[in-house]
Formats: sequence, C-alpha cells, structure tokens
Amino acid sequence: MTAIILSVGDELTLGQTVDTNSAWLSQQLATNGLPVRAHVTVPDDEAAITDAISNAAAQCECLLISGGIGPTPDDLTRQALAKYLHVPLELNLYWLDVLKDFFAKRGRSMPEMNRIQAMIPRGASMIENVAGTAAGISAKVTAWHIVQWVHDSPEKPLEAPVEDRVFMEEEKCHIYVMPGVPKEMKLMFERSVLPTLREKSSGAVILSKALHTFGQGESTVAELLGPLMYRARNPTVGTTVSAGIVSVRINARFPTKDEAQHHLDTTVEECYSKLGDLVFGEDDTTLAESLARMLRDRSVSVATAESCTGGLLAKYLTDVAGSSTYFRQGWVTYSNDSKTSELGVPVGLIDQHGAVSRETVVEMANRARGLATTTYALAISGIAGPGGGTPEKPVGTVCVALSYDDDALEGVSARTFLFPGDREMIRDRSAKMALTMLRYHLLRKPLPF
Amino acid sequence: MTAIILSVGDELTLGQTVDTNSAWLSQQLATNGLPVRAHVTVPDDEAAITDAISNAAAQCECLLISGGIGPTPDDLTRQALAKYLHVPLELNLYWLDVLKDFFAKRGRSMPEMNRIQAMIPRGASMIENVAGTAAGISAKVTAWHIVQWVHDSPEKPLEAPVEDRVFMEEEKCHIYVMPGVPKEMKLMFERSVLPTLREKSSGAVILSKALHTFGQGESTVAELLGPLMYRARNPTVGTTVSAGIVSVRINARFPTKDEAQHHLDTTVEECYSKLGDLVFGEDDTTLAESLARMLRDRSVSVATAESCTGGLLAKYLTDVAGSSTYFRQGWVTYSNDSKTSELGVPVGLIDQHGAVSRETVVEMANRARGLATTTYALAISGIAGPGGGTPEKPVGTVCVALSYDDDALEGVSARTFLFPGDREMIRDRSAKMALTMLRYHLLRKPLPF
Repeated sequence: MTAIILSVGDELTLGQTVDTNSAWLSQQLATNGLPVRAHVTVPDDEAAITDAISNAAAQCECLLISGGIGPTPDDLTRQALAKYLHVPLELNLYWLDVLKDFFAKRGRSMPEMNRIQAMIPRGASMIENVAGTAAGISAKVTAWHIVQWVHDSPEKPLEAPVEDRVFMEEEKCHIYVMPGVPKEMKLMFERSVLPTLREKSSGAVILSKALHTFGQGESTVAELLGPLMYRARNPTVGTTVSAGIVSVRINARFPTKDEAQHHLDTTVEECYSKLGDLVFGEDDTTLAESLARMLRDRSVSVATAESCTGGLLAKYLTDVAGSSTYFRQGWVTYSNDSKTSELGVPVGLIDQHGAVSRETVVEMANRARGLATTTYALAISGIAGPGGGTPEKPVGTVCVALSYDDDALEGVSARTFLFPGDREMIRDRSAKMALTMLRYHLLRKPLPF
Repeated sequence: MTAIILSVGDELTLGQTVDTNSAWLSQQLATNGLPVRAHVTVPDDEAAITDAISNAAAQCECLLISGGIGPTPDDLTRQALAKYLHVPLELNLYWLDVLKDFFAKRGRSMPEMNRIQAMIPRGASMIENVAGTAAGISAKVTAWHIVQWVHDSPEKPLEAPVEDRVFMEEEKCHIYVMPGVPKEMKLMFERSVLPTLREKSSGAVILSKALHTFGQGESTVAELLGPLMYRARNPTVGTTVSAGIVSVRINARFPTKDEAQHHLDTTVEECYSKLGDLVFGEDDTTLAESLARMLRDRSVSVATAESCTGGLLAKYLTDVAGSSTYFRQGWVTYSNDSKTSELGVPVGLIDQHGAVSRETVVEMANRARGLATTTYALAISGIAGPGGGTPEKPVGTVCVALSYDDDALEGVSARTFLFPGDREMIRDRSAKMALTMLRYHLLRKPLPF
C-alpha cells in the first residue's frame, strides 16, 4: 500500500505559508510502514483539486487530503471530491447538530456559511473533528468486477440484464479529507484515520535515524560511507546538506518493528565506524547542543571574542536552554581599537600582523580566557566580505583560535580557513568551525581537516 | 505562463525535512506575476522523478526543480531529466575546471564522485552555482511544428522528404534544475533563473513592491490598511508574516508598464499613508539594513550589551556589509558577574531589582555607551526560557534599554515587553525590538506600541 499526500490552499501555492502538514503526515505514515509516493499541493481551485484527486487516486491506495474544508467560498475540497466521485453533497444531520450546539455554547446562532461544513459526498462517511467545526470525510474509490455470468450469451456480456450478473466490489483507493489547520488535522489523523490505516497497512515498518556532521563536504562523507550508500541496500543510507551540516539519513524498512530496529542499529553502527567523530549528533541534535552537553558533562566553561562573526558564535552557544552553566560572557570586538581597549591586544601586534592573523586571534583567545577566567576561550577574526579582501587574504579568510587550560595543560591552537560563499555563509561557517574546534579538543582528537 | 515546483528528496517524502523551498519559490513567482499551478514532491527514485517531470512538463510552461543534484549515488535528478529528454548526460568542462579549482584552493584534489556535478543533459545548459559545487541545469522542452509544406502531395504530409518542410520550434516548457540546499537554490534562482523568467512572462505587466513592518501583528496591519486589502482590487494588497516581520505585498497587473507603475505608486503611497513609520523598508531591505542606513547617514555609532539574546543583536547589526562605520564593539554579559566585571553594573542593583529589570538594563546601556564612547548603546536582558520564568516575570519577559547622547540631549529610555513563542522566537523578537527602539529614536518619534 502506498500513499499520496495532497495539500490544498492558495496560501501554500502563493508561498505565504510553509506546508508542515505533509512532513508531519509523512513521518506518521513512515513510522507505520506506509511509503509515501509523493506530496502534491494545489491552489483553492475546484478544477485543480478534482484533477489532483483523480491523478493521485489512480497512483496510490491511500490519499490523504488536508485543507479546503473551511466555511468560506474559497474552500472547495468537498465540492471537488464530490465531482470526482460523481455524487452530490448531502447534509449530515448529526454534524449539523454538533455545529449548532458549538455556536449555541458561545451564545451565537450558527452563521449560514458554516452549514457547508456538514456536507458530505453521498456514500462517503463523516469523520468527527474534535478541535474545530469542519467535519472530515472518508471515501472509498471502488471498482466493480463482474465475477460470474449467469446469462447464456457470453459474446455480449455488457448487454446481459443486471440481475443475471454477480458483482464483487474492490477498493482501489481510500480517500481521507482532513482540515488544513495543523492542530485539527493532527487530532483527526491520530483519532480516526491512523487506526483504519494500521488495519490496512501491509505490515512493513520504517524506522529512521539521522547522523549529523560538520567540516567535511558531502562527497567526502559519501566516500567514507562507500558501499553503505548503494541504492539497493536496506536499510538505505543517504546524505543531505543544510547550512553547512552534512546529514546521513538511514531508513530501515522491514516487516516487523524488531527487525527494522535491529537492522537500523546495525547500519547506524556501520556508519559510525566509517565516520567516527565526524558525527556530532543524531536526529534533532544541533552542533551547539552537542557541544553544550560535552561542556556540561565536563563542568567546564567557555568565553568568546569575536570580530567578523559579530556575536554569532556567542548566539550559537546560548541557543541552548541552560547555557549559563558553561557560558558567562563574550566580547564583540569588531574594531581594532576595541580589540585593544577591551581585550588588551597590543596595538603593535595588530599593526604588524593585521587584525585577521593567527597572531591576533591567538592573543584575543588567550586574553578573553584570562579576563573571563574560563576553561576555554574561542576567538574569530576574518574577512566576511563583500569588501576587504586582498590577494593574500581574500574574502572568506578566517582565523580561529582556541585557548585552553584543562587537565593541567595550558595552551592555544589556531587555524586559518578559507570559506566559500557570501557574507552570511562565511560568518555561519566560521562560528560553526569554532564550535567544532572546541568539540575536537574536548574529544582529545586533532581536527581531521 | 504557469509554473509547477517539483521538490526531490527522500528526506521530504519521509517527513524528516519540511520543504521550505517550494514556499520560497512560490513567493518569488507570485511577486513576479507567475501563478503556481502545483507543488509536487517525490523521493530520490529515478523513475518517480522522470514520471513527475513528464507529468508536470505537460501541464505548465515553467518547471522549477530543486534537489537531487548532489554528488552522491542517491542524487538522481540529472539522470531522470536526461531520461525524460531522451538525451545522454555530457561532461561540462568549464564546470569541471571550477570544481577542480574549488578543491585545489582547499589543498585537496577533487573526489571522483563530484565529477557527476559537472554532467549536463545534451542540449541543455549549465547554470552557475556561486555557493556550492552542484551546477544547475536549464533545459527547453520543445515541440517542432511543420509550418509550411513544399511538397505537392498534401494528403500524405508526413511522408514528405524532410528537406521539403519548414519547421518552427516552439518552446512548450522550460525546466530549471537547482540544488536542494536552500541557500544555493535561492542564490541560483535570483541570479540566473528569475531574470530569464521575467523576460518570458508575457502579456500583462506585473509590478510589485513589498513594505516591511515590525512591532504590530498581522491583523493590526490589516485593520490599518482596511479596504485597500479587498480581493477584487487592482493593485492587490496582501500581508505575509515571516520571523516577526509583517510584510505588505502590493501587486499591480496592467497591460503596460507605465500603467502598472502609475497604479503601483499610487497604492504604495496609500499604504504609506495608513502605516506611516511602521514601514521600515521596502523589498529586500532588512530591519538591520534600514537602521544601518540611518546610522551611517547621521554619522553616529552604537554599542550593545546583551544578556538573554547572547550576541544576536550584535550579529544583526553586523549582518550589514560595512557595519564597522557605526558598530565597533559589544558585550555579551550572560552571567550576573560579567554584567558587573565587564560593564560595572553595581552588584547591589542586580540583587535589588534582578538581572531582568528596567533598572539593570538602563545601567547596562548607560555603562556600555560610556565604555564604548558611542552615540548610542542598546541593552537587553530577559527570560528566553524554557526555564527561569516566575509568576511576576514569566518566560518572554524582556527589558530593553536605549542610552543616547545626541543633539545635546543625553538620556536613556527603557521598555519591558512580553514576547510569545519559544526560546528562539523570544530572542529574535527581543533583538528586533531593540533595533526598532533605536529606529524610532532616530526618527524622533515615540514607539507606537
């Protein structure tokens, strides 16, 4: 059994709203072993919705529709479904009573406009909405097969009188219509749709895990994974990139949950054996959260001194709730003067080597750690662009230093990077690289790139 | 001309990633007068991608595809497009050189796997990627019409020798393939795809303008605009919300550019007369850029002292290229101790009023301005959550102060806000509100909310 998810709404095709329903429904279906064949989104246009239902229903056994069942004239999913099914809409008296009651409780009479929310295509059934006024719809698309002929002229079967045939109904596709409002849709899906899908589902279970890395390109990660990424494999292993983070996604599809979990665990282990410390976290874990956990576990602290990133590194470190346990303060020393006045970096040093230099960031990091009396300090100075580049130090040149005093070892390490992209990307990668340098230091491993 | 947006990726149909590309592209197309007929999402499966391209290309004149052009074996959009076009993939030597150069600059040789990123279907052209290694693809789907017969047997036209016919090529659909990484996709769309789409979009001229506001809710902005938002109006006036910014989008659709420009200008003026100073900028202007221009124009400077925003305010101020003209330094005083050690806020004051208090932020702002010797200083202290809230100061309570010394006026103003949402939203709104307080101060107007 495969599924297609259809979202309806002008606000979606106009890009005014990001469709989160499709992702949520896909997760639910995957967890229950139902592969999603496609997502489709169409505007509030009756013909477009009818077409989309018709195309989708021919390609899947389960069509989940959300949106277009509100009370206003631009809500047309009910009408489109009825047209596709070649049946009229009929008033559901039970839901009409529920609606009237809903408004009566609020001291109002039901606006005439809401009557449409109790209309259901003939032959379909109503799905209760526990969080809103729009009733959902459950409709079967069936094919009638003539399985036996009683008539004696087999050459012209279609002309045989109806009473001479034996029919069998076969369900081709089941259509569920739910509200577009995420909260109402989720409640309706969990209460009324999922239980019936579980009954139908062929049994396969899909379990997934994502491993996140930073610092190596997608192709390097893929080379490390090697044959694990072969398409025909189960569990499958794929990679995606977002804001510099290369994520490895592992999906295991097996008849039972136990088998899926076993194979998922085995493949995750194999991925770890290939990627090692490159993986900073799993699933929802961010780079900052992963570092935060390490800092908290070790009861150590970190300060920041930033030039080109202008506060972004400190922002990342404080993205995590409870960051005050390891982060107490930071400096944004954007001008050369402030590097001297706030941190005490000697003017002569900046004059001799430049603000973007190994020497300057080393001094920034050491002095920030001294002033903040923290275990660690991270310093960043670079050319984020678009201006300010030179042939020796082009835009994207960024120096990062880590000053440390832990386990009776005191010192400083520094690296110069050349990041691609625009100002925003360069600043983002610089801050993430600083977090990564500290992460490898805490792992007692050299930076592998 | 209508468009369809196709997103490719297992992570999307499995619901592991929410598709934000389709919404962003839809907004761009809507702003440029191109109606979006549908969004379609399919997994990393060559046959599914080929089918989706084939279905979509038959229904629209512009097909925008994102995703599936990374270097790994699960990236199959190139192959699927070539299959749909019935052509082989060919190596683009220019892009191969760009790739080799990209890796050489990082002291590495190009992994063999990346070679596929320079492969383009025969007859299609390459689109430069300024932020990554995947070249985009621009491909025309054409139909050949026989417009003239030289042959003298019209009853059997298809058997006429080729040299006797006159052909005309008609473009049926233009396909653009872009990376799935949002940043790369956006840059490629803006630089290379949008300009060619603008040329094609024919007939009526659509001119648009967006006016951005911060500080009032969408419904308040809509109330201020009143009848300007009637749907039947031309130019149309609509609102969208993103990261706290409420934008008013005005689209004028008229037969000629002059008419469109005239009506757009008139409606923009009417919107300004309703919204006044609430509008901080137009089109691509961010809140930080709008403030940056004002600070530069007045040759004034600003420093920051942040607690709960942890560097985000300084980050916003330095998002703008050339920010060193008005921003020299900032402090991230996350702990109470650092507010005292770095800024000199008296311990007793914090003990008496708390770190999140009008008294403390006023002191932080005044002292930051004194230390940095700037015209202005902004200070923020608040409870970003999820923990730390009390009945008197619930999560979302944020104090913001502005210390100023300009035009012979010295002083400080402070406000306490209660922002809704999670930690990320509260920090974001706090930083934007601080920028907004300074903006109104520079306008010599009281904050209207």
